[in-house]
Amino acid sequence: MAKKKMPSVKKIYVDYNSTTPVHPEVVEAMMPYYRNVFGNASSIHRFGQEAHRALDLARESIAKLLNCDTSEIVFTSGGTESDNHAIKGIVSAASASSAMASAGNHIITSKIEHSAVLSPCKYLENTAGAVVTYLPVDEYGVVGLQKLDEALTDKTILVSIMSGNNEVGTLQPVEEIGRIIAKHNESRIAKGQRPVYFHTDAVQCAGKISLDLKKLNIDLLSLSSHKIYGPKGVGALFIRKGTKIHPLIHGGHHEKSRRAGTENIPGIAGFGKACDLAVKNMATETKKIAGLRDAIWQGISKKIECVRRNGHPEKCLSNTLNVSFEFIEGESLLLNLDLKGIAASTGSACTSGSLEPSHVLSAMGVDPVTSQSSIRFSLGMLNTQQDVDYILDVLPGIVTKLREMSPLYKKKKRAG
Amino acid sequence: MAKKKMPSVKKIYVDYNSTTPVHPEVVEAMMPYYRNVFGNASSIHRFGQEAHRALDLARESIAKLLNCDTSEIVFTSGGTESDNHAIKGIVSAASASSAMASAGNHIITSKIEHSAVLSPCKYLENTAGAVVTYLPVDEYGVVGLQKLDEALTDKTILVSIMSGNNEVGTLQPVEEIGRIIAKHNESRIAKGQRPVYFHTDAVQCAGKISLDLKKLNIDLLSLSSHKIYGPKGVGALFIRKGTKIHPLIHGGHHEKSRRAGTENIPGIAGFGKACDLAVKNMATETKKIAGLRDAIWQGISKKIECVRRNGHPEKCLSNTLNVSFEFIEGESLLLNLDLKGIAASTGSACTSGSLEPSHVLSAMGVDPVTSQSSIRFSLGMLNTQQDVDYILDVLPGIVTKLREMSPLYKKKKRAG
Repeated sequence: MAKKKMPSVKKIYVDYNSTTPVHPEVVEAMMPYYRNVFGNASSIHRFGQEAHRALDLARESIAKLLNCDTSEIVFTSGGTESDNHAIKGIVSAASASSAMASAGNHIITSKIEHSAVLSPCKYLENTAGAVVTYLPVDEYGVVGLQKLDEALTDKTILVSIMSGNNEVGTLQPVEEIGRIIAKHNESRIAKGQRPVYFHTDAVQCAGKISLDLKKLNIDLLSLSSHKIYGPKGVGALFIRKGTKIHPLIHGGHHEKSRRAGTENIPGIAGFGKACDLAVKNMATETKKIAGLRDAIWQGISKKIECVRRNGHPEKCLSNTLNVSFEFIEGESLLLNLDLKGIAASTGSACTSGSLEPSHVLSAMGVDPVTSQSSIRFSLGMLNTQQDVDYILDVLPGIVTKLREMSPLYKKKKRAG
Repeated sequence: MAKKKMPSVKKIYVDYNSTTPVHPEVVEAMMPYYRNVFGNASSIHRFGQEAHRALDLARESIAKLLNCDTSEIVFTSGGTESDNHAIKGIVSAASASSAMASAGNHIITSKIEHSAVLSPCKYLENTAGAVVTYLPVDEYGVVGLQKLDEALTDKTILVSIMSGNNEVGTLQPVEEIGRIIAKHNESRIAKGQRPVYFHTDAVQCAGKISLDLKKLNIDLLSLSSHKIYGPKGVGALFIRKGTKIHPLIHGGHHEKSRRAGTENIPGIAGFGKACDLAVKNMATETKKIAGLRDAIWQGISKKIECVRRNGHPEKCLSNTLNVSFEFIEGESLLLNLDLKGIAASTGSACTSGSLEPSHVLSAMGVDPVTSQSSIRFSLGMLNTQQDVDYILDVLPGIVTKLREMSPLYKKKKRAG
């Protein structure tokens, strides 16, 4: 009886940058490999051959999304592994090269990278003698091209700068970054030296902006399946032909000896399908989602005072909105939204639980208190205008309630 | 019309050491996490909490299979990653320790390890100055305990010896190995030195023999889900409390900062279910499967001349049978079996395509020609007496046919 009286709780998910639901067509694409085609893709018998065909097909799908060669795709267990592989693999290959002295040990990255890039860099600083430059960003979270140019030295072996930021959505000028590195490499190549490689974590950009690797001067690019409606536990690393890199995971000769371990065929088949869907739906989906995202911001800025949007207003992922609600704790706001059935985030799920203010917002010059008052709405496929209406219906009341508990806000009101 | 006349091709899978079909109950256990519960386990909202519960439950299942604490289980992308994590993580932590000189850089392993152990060891020899002892084995593939004892020095930081061999099935005396290392560590601990850690790749043993980590002196143990009727792309590394080890994959604070990357919840839930089934079914399944395996060997040795069984006749995985068929090529035999619908293997799928004779058989003193004539039958859940009958029906004819093409065999027949 009591059960019947419970009001049905709304469930609105606006945390797509953290993870996405698996698209029903992706689930269907995976099922044959869970139910029937279970062979090891390395086996030479027919069970193995069937599995290998799935691997080939999925590789074509990823290559199509990126406009690259299938031989340049290495499957991994996800975006974090891809980032680790790119960074540690380049450093390891550079140290092992006979021209070690000239190869150097300098990495350039930015202050706003995902922890999957920052943490391997710190590990290499601590254990492998790597020297890392963390480029600053402007108030919108954009890396300065001049700063990059100045940071490149003869010792630089790798530049790792993300394509789109997970917390605030800001897009980096990867085309220009590639051009600066290519320019720098001209003289190196003339001298027979090892080039500087350019890695980009494109985990948040895939399926949202076009990534044409035939045009971009990118040597390594990380993808994650579960950010684009594919299954968790699968990712890919694009490695441009000729790039000198070591594996991260050694063992059997899988993935042309670039990544050992029995291939996760169902997951890879699902990832392939997710890429097919991304190619097919990107234009219409991103337009729809951007519209909803903009409607949330318009509603918030109209209905709630003392708010600010973080990130670049135009050069931004179509689905991401990061807002500071001054005088309140982002964490409290989140919990209150969750009670109303709205799932948002204070930033990266990968750093949730941390008491530190966001390193991304700090790098953008946002003060720690404002930073702690920020939450991220990241929209996706299943969101509707009704979701937007519900969020805009519920949010102002929660903000008012939380601000009423803030002594600083009361002081401001009195002063105002 | 033509289709109707095609005889239905038998499909008998006896390559379970390579990979297993996913148990239908495992598929069912995964489905909710593909269809509904898709949250990121690190998110604090209810979508995240639901995902986190699945993670906790699965961790309990793995811990139950191994009789260890849940806090000692780290989820990985598979057995190969677990092996890499164990070996490189111990070496990295030892090098970083302030007592570096006393910690040393010596690893002891065996000549019959899986490539997921041998390849990281070789990588560390080439790039990190590690010194690796590859222990020999006897004719049955058993590592000598005396040799291990003699190999341990003050510089030793890690012993990595597999529990059960994937190619020939021989079980290693892990209990005694653990005891020898513990004995060696007594004096180290008295001197306040870092202990030697013992890692074992138990990928082939899980679900086949009991692994009681409260009793065994094992510090690190690798598991793979897809070898025990779970999904591919998931594994675990047991890390005993207090073990000084670095992560292999750096990033967010997942798995208590021991393995970064969004947790593959559906895969992990499936792995948990596979462990539950292994605990429940091990005793009856291994007995049934051993019976079928023995029946194949009895049939072969009765019906076919010039055969030899490789591996230990008793201390052996219950499902594994490795046989040399003199005067023929194992690869040709496999292809002919495949045409008859029987999927077996020449050894490890992870080294298939290699033209080298098996490193395991070589270490056991098998000459290269005999080694190349060997194939592995590895049985599992779905095999029946009918499968055995069919194999024994088909195999002798294929062997005779192939031997008739062998000049050496003809010569022997004439001489005989």
